Amino acid sequence: MATPEFTARTLRRLLASGVTTRAERLLAKMPPADVAPLLSDLTPEETRSIIELLFRQRRAALVLRELPHELLPNVFDAVSDQRIADVIGRLEIDDLIDLAESIPEDRREEVLGRLPVHRREELLKAELYPESSAGRVMTTSFVALDEKMSCQEAIDSIRSMGDDNEAILYLYVVDDQRSLRGVVPIRRLVAAPPERQVGEIMIASPVCVRAEADQEEVADVVRRYDLLAVPVVDVDNRMLGVITVDDIIDVITEEATEDIYNLAGLSEEDRVFSPAPTSIRKRLPWMLINLLTCFLAAWVVGLFERSIQQMVALAVFLPVVGGMAGNGGTQSLTVITRGIALGELEFSSGFRALRKELAVGLAIGAITGLVSAGIALAWQAEPVVGLALFLAMVVSMTVSGMMGAAVPLILKSLRLDPALGSGVIVTTFTDVFAFFAFLGIATLLLDRIASG
Amino acid sequence: MATPEFTARTLRRLLASGVTTRAERLLAKMPPADVAPLLSDLTPEETRSIIELLFRQRRAALVLRELPHELLPNVFDAVSDQRIADVIGRLEIDDLIDLAESIPEDRREEVLGRLPVHRREELLKAELYPESSAGRVMTTSFVALDEKMSCQEAIDSIRSMGDDNEAILYLYVVDDQRSLRGVVPIRRLVAAPPERQVGEIMIASPVCVRAEADQEEVADVVRRYDLLAVPVVDVDNRMLGVITVDDIIDVITEEATEDIYNLAGLSEEDRVFSPAPTSIRKRLPWMLINLLTCFLAAWVVGLFERSIQQMVALAVFLPVVGGMAGNGGTQSLTVITRGIALGELEFSSGFRALRKELAVGLAIGAITGLVSAGIALAWQAEPVVGLALFLAMVVSMTVSGMMGAAVPLILKSLRLDPALGSGVIVTTFTDVFAFFAFLGIATLLLDRIASG
Repeated sequence: MATPEFTARTLRRLLASGVTTRAERLLAKMPPADVAPLLSDLTPEETRSIIELLFRQRRAALVLRELPHELLPNVFDAVSDQRIADVIGRLEIDDLIDLAESIPEDRREEVLGRLPVHRREELLKAELYPESSAGRVMTTSFVALDEKMSCQEAIDSIRSMGDDNEAILYLYVVDDQRSLRGVVPIRRLVAAPPERQVGEIMIASPVCVRAEADQEEVADVVRRYDLLAVPVVDVDNRMLGVITVDDIIDVITEEATEDIYNLAGLSEEDRVFSPAPTSIRKRLPWMLINLLTCFLAAWVVGLFERSIQQMVALAVFLPVVGGMAGNGGTQSLTVITRGIALGELEFSSGFRALRKELAVGLAIGAITGLVSAGIALAWQAEPVVGLALFLAMVVSMTVSGMMGAAVPLILKSLRLDPALGSGVIVTTFTDVFAFFAFLGIATLLLDRIASG
Repeated sequence: MATPEFTARTLRRLLASGVTTRAERLLAKMPPADVAPLLSDLTPEETRSIIELLFRQRRAALVLRELPHELLPNVFDAVSDQRIADVIGRLEIDDLIDLAESIPEDRREEVLGRLPVHRREELLKAELYPESSAGRVMTTSFVALDEKMSCQEAIDSIRSMGDDNEAILYLYVVDDQRSLRGVVPIRRLVAAPPERQVGEIMIASPVCVRAEADQEEVADVVRRYDLLAVPVVDVDNRMLGVITVDDIIDVITEEATEDIYNLAGLSEEDRVFSPAPTSIRKRLPWMLINLLTCFLAAWVVGLFERSIQQMVALAVFLPVVGGMAGNGGTQSLTVITRGIALGELEFSSGFRALRKELAVGLAIGAITGLVSAGIALAWQAEPVVGLALFLAMVVSMTVSGMMGAAVPLILKSLRLDPALGSGVIVTTFTDVFAFFAFLGIATLLLDRIASG
């Protein structure tokens, strides 16, 4: 298979030499997901030509859908308002709303004004649902059946719709009020005797989600019950739309990225391909907060300047207590936040998890504390340092294990995102506590020796 | 809806009072994914009773499939060899292989010996595929059609199979050698005129994966092309099985956990509900490696004991340089590893990413370095410390940004897991480098002052 760089070069050469028919044929053979990466590497002129070619093939919309949001502005810059409206007007409503948000502020109104009226209305309606809710992710095209229909009639109604509707995996049985009564998997419809009524073969009171539900909740439902699509209903159980599993995969991927990013204090829009100024702007606030917390740790060390003056070896071991407590806290934090995200606490409980992380911290603190004290004694021959190191590591790793578990559990019980900010809180606390424990214990011991 | 704790209590009471019919009815109403959490909270006696009840309902296998691997041994302990064989013998091959691996070593042979011969052979065959490969995840039941069949005949052949085969989303067109020719989405089959030949409506040369392919590759293909199932073929393009999207969701979730865990130096079997001794055993080796790297940092600090003796303020700012460089490295590491996992480097390139992370590190190092130097001067009024802090932060954050990007990219180019071990390598390196830069620069400045 040709590499993307190779294909991009070929395409560029074909466009430059004006051989658009060959470029067109090359593009026609490629799936949209393979065309998208090419667009990140072209000049505005080339981008414009490719969008035109794709538009003629009615595939421009599908390609744009595959492009990371961060790269859409570049593409839009190269294309006219009318063209953007033509392209995105062909998308399902969930993709339309998504792309509409990526149009630069100053052109958005103009572009959306050029959409057909019914699409504009659809968009306005969808935007009423809260950000990241089921209502924003659902598609509104689905097949609704009447309970009394025969299976053959149902099949005929699908036939009469043609092949356009890709979302037909389940058919939905509704009553006169469009209230959801049941679900018929298409494979079950096909397997059933043609004269059977759909009401007899449907799955009654099926799993469904409310339009206001958070997309993460929807993903949990789909993952838990192994669904291919989930119906979305309003407060009166009226059928509004369907969320399919491919959108759920995107949600799951997005949520996992959010969790990983939150632990490192990153914002979601900060990606590999984001320009450096964007990344700097996104990371700077968190780095400044982090700087403050580092100074808090520095201040704690400063409290003990006299002891360090007296015994410089104490400074040498600061990286050991700080590094170990920080890592212990991060490990317990990671296990708990991931456990919360995956619903693993169903198989345990917050209290049990907390108790366990505390025990693990204590055990690892005792073992690594002993090893550290041994190395410290052999290296520096200072019993005070060795003893302080051992005691500080036991105490601080126990506390950091507990903190790593407690912070996300508390955030969760306050209905906040358990991963958000946990990293900062835990590492600050563990550093400050570990330095305080180590230098404090050492100072007490030194004072005791001095007074004894 | 009743909470799991409440349901567990009710169930336990019903079992204790011998009212198994009511317990049975309660269980019958619950989806397998909701029954599974109950099993984590019962005595062996209660577990045995529930497994018996579920077995009578032919649902025990589905419930076990929903239980985290780490909890299976407890359940198996409560149940006889014959019963385990009866239960797991009903599973699809991908789930069977999965559960067979969780049977305690000393009982495995006995249990597997009680499986029906054809299932045992199937298992042996599946185990020939490498760990985490497509061959291990695929199900071998699918509908194969002949190109010349009419759509009506295809529908009839599905009807004759009954409703048992849940995996029918696509039908697969094969030739005499069972070589894969095309795919027919079931919705397309239903929508097509009954007399049409399947060869005319099939998607020719469809996306497929080799049985030896890694499950992560398969997940990428499914995510990229928004598939619901992907056919698995051998080296001669012969159809072997199908991987459905619900298994892919599990793979995606598992891989995301692996990435998050690797960054914190955790092993995948270390979960919220793992017993404390397991977690201690799993974390200890990594913590001992980490201890070594902390002592490496301590050794670097030790090299400059004389300077610290001369100016104790230097010790005070160690947490600042170390903490900031560590965080900068972790951020750039996280962006790049996640970018590699999601294929975002398609929209950029390794070299561009490296250059960008270097620039971001330099900019953030310069800004936070200036702020730090300002605070340090105001606090300690030592120009040497302020200058050394500024210079060390610029240099070490530039280097840590670059390292955070370079390490996973290098691991990837060596075909190793980019996330595995990156965390240790990067944080060790950044700490050691940052301390060396800060104390080294300060020592040079002090020497200059002394000799000037």
